[in-house]
Amino acid sequence: MRKVALVGAGVTKFGVRKATYRDLIWEAGKACFDSVPSVKPHGLEGLVVGSVMPERTAFQSHISSLAAEALGITPSALSARTEHMCASGTVGIRYAYAFIAAGLADLVMVLGVEKLNQPVADEAILNMGTGVDRDWEACYGLTAPPCFALAAQKHMAQYGTTEEQLGLVGVKNHAHASKNPNAHFQKGVTLEQVMGSRMIASPLRLFMCSPITDGAAAVILASEERARDLTDRPVWIRGTGQALDGFTLTSLHEDYAHWPAMKRASQSAYRMASIGPADVDLAEVHDCFAIAEIIAYEELGFCEKGEGGHFVATGRSDYGGDVVVNSRGGLMGCGHPLGATGVAQAAEVYAQLRGEAGPRQVADAAIGLTHNNSGMGEHVVMVYGREGA
Amino acid sequence: MRKVALVGAGVTKFGVRKATYRDLIWEAGKACFDSVPSVKPHGLEGLVVGSVMPERTAFQSHISSLAAEALGITPSALSARTEHMCASGTVGIRYAYAFIAAGLADLVMVLGVEKLNQPVADEAILNMGTGVDRDWEACYGLTAPPCFALAAQKHMAQYGTTEEQLGLVGVKNHAHASKNPNAHFQKGVTLEQVMGSRMIASPLRLFMCSPITDGAAAVILASEERARDLTDRPVWIRGTGQALDGFTLTSLHEDYAHWPAMKRASQSAYRMASIGPADVDLAEVHDCFAIAEIIAYEELGFCEKGEGGHFVATGRSDYGGDVVVNSRGGLMGCGHPLGATGVAQAAEVYAQLRGEAGPRQVADAAIGLTHNNSGMGEHVVMVYGREGA
Repeated sequence: MRKVALVGAGVTKFGVRKATYRDLIWEAGKACFDSVPSVKPHGLEGLVVGSVMPERTAFQSHISSLAAEALGITPSALSARTEHMCASGTVGIRYAYAFIAAGLADLVMVLGVEKLNQPVADEAILNMGTGVDRDWEACYGLTAPPCFALAAQKHMAQYGTTEEQLGLVGVKNHAHASKNPNAHFQKGVTLEQVMGSRMIASPLRLFMCSPITDGAAAVILASEERARDLTDRPVWIRGTGQALDGFTLTSLHEDYAHWPAMKRASQSAYRMASIGPADVDLAEVHDCFAIAEIIAYEELGFCEKGEGGHFVATGRSDYGGDVVVNSRGGLMGCGHPLGATGVAQAAEVYAQLRGEAGPRQVADAAIGLTHNNSGMGEHVVMVYGREGA
Repeated sequence: MRKVALVGAGVTKFGVRKATYRDLIWEAGKACFDSVPSVKPHGLEGLVVGSVMPERTAFQSHISSLAAEALGITPSALSARTEHMCASGTVGIRYAYAFIAAGLADLVMVLGVEKLNQPVADEAILNMGTGVDRDWEACYGLTAPPCFALAAQKHMAQYGTTEEQLGLVGVKNHAHASKNPNAHFQKGVTLEQVMGSRMIASPLRLFMCSPITDGAAAVILASEERARDLTDRPVWIRGTGQALDGFTLTSLHEDYAHWPAMKRASQSAYRMASIGPADVDLAEVHDCFAIAEIIAYEELGFCEKGEGGHFVATGRSDYGGDVVVNSRGGLMGCGHPLGATGVAQAAEVYAQLRGEAGPRQVADAAIGLTHNNSGMGEHVVMVYGREGA
């Protein structure tokens, strides 16, 4: 299997954007091409687009072809859109990765994009409900916030995790976002503000949740030979893993506070990368809700099961701690434009492992991890390493 | 790069189905598992689902996870939905193929599914419009039928192709479908019936068009080692190619009768398979409209440019001719449940190359090809071969 590296990356401003899908694609594509000037659109052999619901939000399927044309890319090996709800972007990176690793392509862009905010505010909420089982869950109101609230309640009951610990995830990630000019939120929040914010699904308050956000991100993947031609600081894909326990809540887990598929996905990725969790310098984990980040600490192996709340409260997931989690601000601070999220995480790891993350730079970052869940039972993990790491 | 084979296949009845997505997934999944009894759902390492618009037709994204759970599959390496409009299923096969070829997985199901027919008949027509550019084409009425009608008119003007030749594509494919119990239409049509059928977009009449159809199909892909364990008649993926000229009609081609991306995609696939078009025994081509099949003869290299009309009229694309095109009945006879189409084509090639196609069997079939376009400028080609071919 051939080695594959990231050689370029770009993201749009995330937020409530007065922009079409095409506008966001242009913005992310330009930022990405600007990051690696010797790559021209016609020089790419493919484009994969991660996007969840342009059919609903813009009455547009076939968005991979739209994006290719918008960016002047004429794929000669690979063109596709990938969707796996909140993991759509990372699943797209894996598509391009497999093609290059197999020797079927050498240079491919992966772009994630979502325009969720609509003129009618409730429509975004409604559309987000497509991610859970329509017949058996969504139509009874069991959308994402109550699902993750159940996990939080179980975790609190079983391990003594506190509402303040959940709140501290929000404080940390909003603080990181304040150093990220592309983040949706840049003002930071205090623990008092988090704990005083509106209850969404008990115990999850507004600032323990990711917002509804528009945005796009793009990365370029290259084979080893092309990567070495294009940059002296390629960021290598070292490992990847994906695992599913199930889709509907009733099918999941021993209990909602254990997410074994995340553990399996990370173990696959660690094994492939020949590393362990202690080797990870920074991790972009899927903090769609604060409880997801706390459980991620545990299932990714950064701390023991049940210690996730303590882990954040003692600063072990922040700068100066064991591992910097969500240095760009996470889904809470940056926002969560579904298809874009996984690609934006990769772009952050790319910047960090090249030492280009400015005020967010993790000192001497050598190994970076990204994680997405798309529900509590579906997980995907990537491990990246800088040259020689 | 590792060799990859099809080792199982199953399809649902295609038609106007009173069924949910989950029903269709169950039906195709069961048929596929029944075809290779030693493979159990838990033995699969992944599932890729090709589907275009469950967001619109069933208010459901994340359908790959829904399908995995419905079939009892717990992916440990790969889970994703792929969408590339009419090529969604084949693009899914390529995802699984690349994973196995790279050594990232050994045994993966690819399932295509679409439930297009809705209680309100016009909604299906409306939803099909998501496949073209919403802002620049669909909103002005430039959906698929008028696009392909322009190609037909140009081909007739430039090469003297006749309406009767277009009609003969419909006659042939409906005749093939009459031998396929899973086809949407099984009565056959005469040339008189085709030429007397309703005009859809001049010169394309009703029986020169594929219908709006519900259905699903599934195949199982395996690494060489697993394939040889599972069957004595694996069907090898010998080559694949994909190419894009553009998305919107205005960006395309020297003229609408030339589809150079199809030629490039097929040349990539032939080169990889070390064959030429004359080696192909059967081809499942994307006859969404009759003109697409005629142009496919030419761009795939079965005849010279401009001779496609003559090719079908002289029986060269039928049993006893140069290459049997659309032995299962094509999109016209079987119907075109978007995400399912590419996978159903692969299932037909699988049956044919194993000598299991019953009354539709192509004598001594050794090499089979599938082709999808998703618009006139986007093409994907697969080449399959039986053992030793």
